[in-house]
Amino acid sequence: MGRRYDTVSLLTDYGHVDELAGVLHAVVRDIAAHVTVIDLTHDIPAFDVRAGALALARAIGYLPEGVVVAVVDPGVGTDRRGVAIEVAGGAGVLIGPDNGLLAPAAAVVGGAERAVELTEATYQLAAPGATFAGRDVFAPSAAHLCNGVELDALGPQVDPALLVPGIIPLPRREGDELRADVLWVDRFGNCQLNVASEDLDDVTGGSPDPVAVVVGEDRHVARRATTFADLGPGSLGLVVDSHGMLQLALDRRSAAVELGVAAGDQVVLVALDDGAGVTTAVEMRAR
Amino acid sequence: MGRRYDTVSLLTDYGHVDELAGVLHAVVRDIAAHVTVIDLTHDIPAFDVRAGALALARAIGYLPEGVVVAVVDPGVGTDRRGVAIEVAGGAGVLIGPDNGLLAPAAAVVGGAERAVELTEATYQLAAPGATFAGRDVFAPSAAHLCNGVELDALGPQVDPALLVPGIIPLPRREGDELRADVLWVDRFGNCQLNVASEDLDDVTGGSPDPVAVVVGEDRHVARRATTFADLGPGSLGLVVDSHGMLQLALDRRSAAVELGVAAGDQVVLVALDDGAGVTTAVEMRAR
Amino acid sequence: MGRRYDTVSLLTDYGHVDELAGVLHAVVRDIAAHVTVIDLTHDIPAFDVRAGALALARAIGYLPEGVVVAVVDPGVGTDRRGVAIEVAGGAGVLIGPDNGLLAPAAAVVGGAERAVELTEATYQLAAPGATFAGRDVFAPSAAHLCNGVELDALGPQVDPALLVPGIIPLPRREGDELRADVLWVDRFGNCQLNVASEDLDDVTGGSPDPVAVVVGEDRHVARRATTFADLGPGSLGLVVDSHGMLQLALDRRSAAVELGVAAGDQVVLVALDDGAGVTTAVEMRAR
Repeated sequence: MGRRYDTVSLLTDYGHVDELAGVLHAVVRDIAAHVTVIDLTHDIPAFDVRAGALALARAIGYLPEGVVVAVVDPGVGTDRRGVAIEVAGGAGVLIGPDNGLLAPAAAVVGGAERAVELTEATYQLAAPGATFAGRDVFAPSAAHLCNGVELDALGPQVDPALLVPGIIPLPRREGDELRADVLWVDRFGNCQLNVASEDLDDVTGGSPDPVAVVVGEDRHVARRATTFADLGPGSLGLVVDSHGMLQLALDRRSAAVELGVAAGDQVVLVALDDGAGVTTAVEMRAR
Repeated sequence: MGRRYDTVSLLTDYGHVDELAGVLHAVVRDIAAHVTVIDLTHDIPAFDVRAGALALARAIGYLPEGVVVAVVDPGVGTDRRGVAIEVAGGAGVLIGPDNGLLAPAAAVVGGAERAVELTEATYQLAAPGATFAGRDVFAPSAAHLCNGVELDALGPQVDPALLVPGIIPLPRREGDELRADVLWVDRFGNCQLNVASEDLDDVTGGSPDPVAVVVGEDRHVARRATTFADLGPGSLGLVVDSHGMLQLALDRRSAAVELGVAAGDQVVLVALDDGAGVTTAVEMRAR
Repeated sequence: MGRRYDTVSLLTDYGHVDELAGVLHAVVRDIAAHVTVIDLTHDIPAFDVRAGALALARAIGYLPEGVVVAVVDPGVGTDRRGVAIEVAGGAGVLIGPDNGLLAPAAAVVGGAERAVELTEATYQLAAPGATFAGRDVFAPSAAHLCNGVELDALGPQVDPALLVPGIIPLPRREGDELRADVLWVDRFGNCQLNVASEDLDDVTGGSPDPVAVVVGEDRHVARRATTFADLGPGSLGLVVDSHGMLQLALDRRSAAVELGVAAGDQVVLVALDDGAGVTTAVEMRAR
């Protein structure tokens, strides 16, 4: 018998309008009734592997010991592999498609230590079609793991070094500019950048002064702040977010809407004393 | 004492914007703390009994033993009955309004074996108004059942043959055509038809060749495929879905949006060699 | 050791598109694995403290013993206090920002009996930023309470009388009119008013006859009814809702859409025999 687990955390792009996410709960409970299932989110944009990978990477440090089932899987039913990846000395196992979805989260907790391809039908459900691997492959494999089935029993070992990597862009320093990417726009419209405070200090010489944020043709001034309320009405801010990254934010308004940016967009951060042009305030739209 | 249950599965049209679904959890836990509650979905379109019945019928085969509470209930508070229906030798009990919502799911697991009308106030909550039977009638009845209360204690027996049936349309063969209905459009825009592979084989003589799909005035060609990715960009497919039915699908795009179809619409499937007119490709819209 | 709890109920404005709500589940489970977590709702409109307070006040009477974590918190990270409020002789503890969110619910169950400010870092998570108090302050404090940590251990006592009150408007009688507020529009478009049946009886002299409902420039006739179906097609009703308040409702249609009202709007109720003008029917829009 292998290690037993009593928590399965789910992250998918199934949404809530259908019963798909609920069926994952049902399958896990039917096989492993002792398990508590946590919904991290099921509203990853459809097919957006990158967004799913980032969300899982943000969450994994807060998860209890157990198994994660993550499914954003446009290649379902093809020869893309389903995998189970052991991390953190066995404290966690990540299950899902081998398409880069799991890799950033695995990296956050120290990297993949052992991996298998999910091929053993004994631990899967017989499927009338090939389109719902979450129900038929990933959830039952997770539940059997929770029951103490050995990782190796789920299928043949895979070299962890050969798993599909996740691609997360790094900010690029170009002269006085820091070219950054919007990694995530949250429900409130805050825009997480792939920039830590230290990265920005490196450009500004450590000055806490406002900086210019260039979005397309527009140039805005952003104050550095610790809280949204500190910004006050209409002032754009660079606020240290709950993961230690800088986010573009407004107080009680959506920075994403006001600036017209979305996840995946690029923005440029520049120290204001570079004399490189006129700045424009964020123009407030009617709420 | 009757049989005890430790799982209650919920399916409603309450949505998530209000606390209604959460209150069902609270009511069950307050009465029967040992029970795990599973949310199948709460986003059935408001008042859409047919959509709720189909979702429950799709899910029921995957549920663990236990009680189901399903609520899509435009007639709440009227003389439509609230019922509890025993199925599968007592392995499951379906609770909700007797309006056709429960019938297809009951049929999937062998049919209603015993039923009672929910009239016994002892197992319900006193209600300030008549509009929230989920909270006041269905959830508490389910929780008491889980505690071992006998089914018959919930109210007088009802002849299972007299429960309101669910109406699920069957495909109609007309000459060389198969007239089908769109049963379900999932989050990804895949359109489940009320057609199994064998039904289509019957029209095409078993040929695996593409077929014509007529939607209103438009005629499209659809390939038969096992996975979405097999279709490639822009090609319409008929893919065996996770319930063994055929679905109209595109790879990483919404077939429902591209074809302009919704749940309840009719489409016609015809073998392509019938020479009955010009076919048009699916015109890709901007995402 | 203090009292132990085994249920934590969550209510936030985090939405479901991000993993924020899921992370609260994870944090609670990591600290207090015996706890069941209930999602009341996470879809309170962003920053809408009043809507959150009303939803919690509606739900609290149905919650099992335990801890509530409520987060609608535009002032996160500022000097607004985080608090834990004991109610009902210790049967419940409400945790969240001291901004009026918790006060109406506390009042429903008898008022705040004891309160502390959440300052003790031992029972919180170290935070890379100050923007996610739900994860870093409220959820871990709740979980430690569930484990038997004393309320007083979470921080210094606060005078319950000095907690920020919640503001819920009362209806105003002006001559023959009752000026009411729309407290809540539910998923179905029913509009809960801050008016009990008795309040309306007071205006109408107890007559069960229809009344006039004035919305802006428009004047509608509303029948009093017990169920939605009793209203029949297109007839506006005043239906006693599941909390004993009157709601403006239509059968299987959204009264909010048809009348053009939203939460926070005012409407005026008048007995029809006042001869004060022409009434207009609700004009049905295409669904």
